[in-house]
Amino acid sequence: MQIVFLFYDGMTALDVVGPHEILCRLPGAVVKRVAKQAGTMKTDSAGLMLTAEYALSDVSRADVLLIPGAGNATTLQKVPGILDWVKAIHQTTIWTTSVCTGSLILGAAGLLKNLRATTHWAALDRLSTWGANPVSERIVEDGKVMTAAGVSAGIDMALTLAAKLSGPHIAQSLQLGIEYDPNPPFDVGSPEKASPAILEALRSRLTASFEGIK
Amino acid sequence: MQIVFLFYDGMTALDVVGPHEILCRLPGAVVKRVAKQAGTMKTDSAGLMLTAEYALSDVSRADVLLIPGAGNATTLQKVPGILDWVKAIHQTTIWTTSVCTGSLILGAAGLLKNLRATTHWAALDRLSTWGANPVSERIVEDGKVMTAAGVSAGIDMALTLAAKLSGPHIAQSLQLGIEYDPNPPFDVGSPEKASPAILEALRSRLTASFEGIK
Repeated sequence: MQIVFLFYDGMTALDVVGPHEILCRLPGAVVKRVAKQAGTMKTDSAGLMLTAEYALSDVSRADVLLIPGAGNATTLQKVPGILDWVKAIHQTTIWTTSVCTGSLILGAAGLLKNLRATTHWAALDRLSTWGANPVSERIVEDGKVMTAAGVSAGIDMALTLAAKLSGPHIAQSLQLGIEYDPNPPFDVGSPEKASPAILEALRSRLTASFEGIK
Repeated sequence: MQIVFLFYDGMTALDVVGPHEILCRLPGAVVKRVAKQAGTMKTDSAGLMLTAEYALSDVSRADVLLIPGAGNATTLQKVPGILDWVKAIHQTTIWTTSVCTGSLILGAAGLLKNLRATTHWAALDRLSTWGANPVSERIVEDGKVMTAAGVSAGIDMALTLAAKLSGPHIAQSLQLGIEYDPNPPFDVGSPEKASPAILEALRSRLTASFEGIK
């Protein structure tokens, strides 16, 4: 089972590493971390660098494709050849997936037309740009496309995917292995739950960063 | 505010990247990723490589020190100079912290004597080797030492730490920013909640990997 993570400069580290920690431990998983060119990628998480061992041209199929998001996903769309590669890999997948604004890349590649999909809450309305039906849910499935909401939602998505690919027993063992019994100190992790002041301050800041996404 | 992450070959990627995603965004944060030698480290997460930009000798103080865990934390203890460095940095910190079996490194460095502390559930009894009082809680504070349970608990710990360092308003904004409104597909993320069969199978496998820790 070939699980392919698309890496790029500017991606958010946890969008990748949350799901990676789970999916890389599925029985029979062969993980490939792929970028335009192989090498170290600088994330938007204080410049933390992650390495992609493969170039786009090395990988022509995936059972699972995962596209992480970025504070400014335009970085990725400007890279020549990326959208064509995403489209081509999608033809071969069992599941095409994204975390956070990674779904905007799926949209730009033309893969979300008339599909229900989600993304980071502050970018949700941008999904309709590519004919998707934006849904404010943590994980959205439509056909073989699974999209997750912002950053940390990738962990919940990966466990959902693990259950579909390898059965609930394996998924539960992986969840126990990473001791994922979440207990955040606050209950403010979605727009409905946050205080209006915090929500609006963050929305203005993030909207500015997402504006560039076309 | 200098936030120092200790990197090493064999560490678990999410132990680092969960807290890093939050702490790197604290106001005034200067993040340093440090290893015995600067360079790329191979995690125990299917070999995903993360880069440390600093060597131990480059860093002599930290406001926050974070030590991630590993499937086999002996890897780290065998590296000459690590425990002395951890001890020396601890003298300078506001908070000395660990995720998962990272606390066993704090123990080996002699920093947990008579302190309450936690670690991955499958390694909990090993904490008493160094005179710590093992506590089965997700986050344990004793003095300026904060330890988190397995892997994903680092995210909850980092938000707790964010609130202490920068106030609850900032912590809540960071939580909303990563849309941390967890909703795992199963409620099996701690030993008390898991099915006995899954728990015991995983316990035997992990105990074997933790056996080497002395």
